[in-house]
Amino acid sequence: MKVVIIGAGNVGYHLGIKLHQVGVEIVQVFSRKYQKASRLALEVGSKPVSNLADISKEADLYLIAVHDSAIREVATRLATLGVSGKLIAHTSGATSIQVFENAGFSRFGVFYPLQTFSTSRIPDFDKIPFCIDANNPDDLSVLINLASKVSSNVNKINDQQRTLLHVAAVFVNNFPNHLFHIGDKLLEQGGMDMDLLLPLIQETVDKIENNKPNKMQTGPALRKDDSTINQHLKMLEKYPDYQELYRLLTHSIQKVK
Amino acid sequence: MKVVIIGAGNVGYHLGIKLHQVGVEIVQVFSRKYQKASRLALEVGSKPVSNLADISKEADLYLIAVHDSAIREVATRLATLGVSGKLIAHTSGATSIQVFENAGFSRFGVFYPLQTFSTSRIPDFDKIPFCIDANNPDDLSVLINLASKVSSNVNKINDQQRTLLHVAAVFVNNFPNHLFHIGDKLLEQGGMDMDLLLPLIQETVDKIENNKPNKMQTGPALRKDDSTINQHLKMLEKYPDYQELYRLLTHSIQKVK
Repeated sequence: MKVVIIGAGNVGYHLGIKLHQVGVEIVQVFSRKYQKASRLALEVGSKPVSNLADISKEADLYLIAVHDSAIREVATRLATLGVSGKLIAHTSGATSIQVFENAGFSRFGVFYPLQTFSTSRIPDFDKIPFCIDANNPDDLSVLINLASKVSSNVNKINDQQRTLLHVAAVFVNNFPNHLFHIGDKLLEQGGMDMDLLLPLIQETVDKIENNKPNKMQTGPALRKDDSTINQHLKMLEKYPDYQELYRLLTHSIQKVK
Repeated sequence: MKVVIIGAGNVGYHLGIKLHQVGVEIVQVFSRKYQKASRLALEVGSKPVSNLADISKEADLYLIAVHDSAIREVATRLATLGVSGKLIAHTSGATSIQVFENAGFSRFGVFYPLQTFSTSRIPDFDKIPFCIDANNPDDLSVLINLASKVSSNVNKINDQQRTLLHVAAVFVNNFPNHLFHIGDKLLEQGGMDMDLLLPLIQETVDKIENNKPNKMQTGPALRKDDSTINQHLKMLEKYPDYQELYRLLTHSIQKVK
């Protein structure tokens, strides 16, 4: 199978390397920044291009890993370059599969790895849930087979489900990370190191591996321990933003049935 | 060393068992509920009592693991029972060490394991940060030595630091768990299982093991990706509470310098 990877950011980079490792032929890597295209192309024995007009017309799959805001533009441009009959897929959690139909493609899908990627960390692909969709059964099979080469967690996920997953991912990744940051800032005030909180954070996650988070909820909000809650709110007077978050999250916990 | 454990809830229960395992003599276990006292006493070869008047006067340490709201009352009562010259300590993150001075004790401290305890999970004590304090150097040593028998993470933490730790613990444990619950509820709407989010949640935590959370922040809020943020807010219209949390957390992320 011949794949062109379009976009060499964190997702394109790690995914490209992994696909190459499992024997998929990466025929080209596109990035508007030639240097980024080169960096990945070098790793996967491929050719870098920085002009969409130079995209190969001979690939089996065009894998779009650019920012959400650029997917429509890239797809529309590609459709004019003689590949509108080829299979195209994006790696995004937030963009509808319909973007490709609107751009003029006839065979299209989604190839969304539900994980947070950083330049500095090599992801453990085998555990990453791949969320796959396509506009026809044959291409669905093609994409599911491809995902199965890199992960043992492959799921057929439709547009509506993927949108839910994406907003849920913000709630379970971006937002908790910000709360960890607040914990870090509070400890800083007492000359303490974030390390003190890591065992508690790890246990928070370990507990929900086999239990519904709702069943694992603890703390002053759940206990309706107003004395502790008021003591915390008073302490947070110096940080009105944290105080407001504390109040709202406490309120939200208490409303769960 | 002879210890009386007062309170047989999750903290008292697990701590009692661990202390017994490392060779500390648990001479009595007190709980207002005789059955709870018995359950722990049986595990640690000790005697259950459910009346404070029956508390032994011969112990070296009286370890108070009752609810925050009951510490003052229990300490005040104990002081009248002939043990006010003995070492007393509580296991709470939220209660001042001064509660014991006010109750009439002369030797007192704090023995606070910074972890969330559940009945059903056996904690890995060695990794639990113990936050120790005392009103005199000798008893500080006693409590630090005791904590060192069960954990390799023992810290001298004063009242002000402990208060910060306790509110930080709410931010990094209670609140993220609630956000995991919201993720779970959102997936339910699409007939999907929470398992899909677990690798992402684990990675969120793995990333901050060696990095400041602030450096690891990602997502639409940080990118100021208004198109995705507005799409998410629109999706959350059915859940006004979640929508308000989303808005406030997004705003808070964007205010970080």
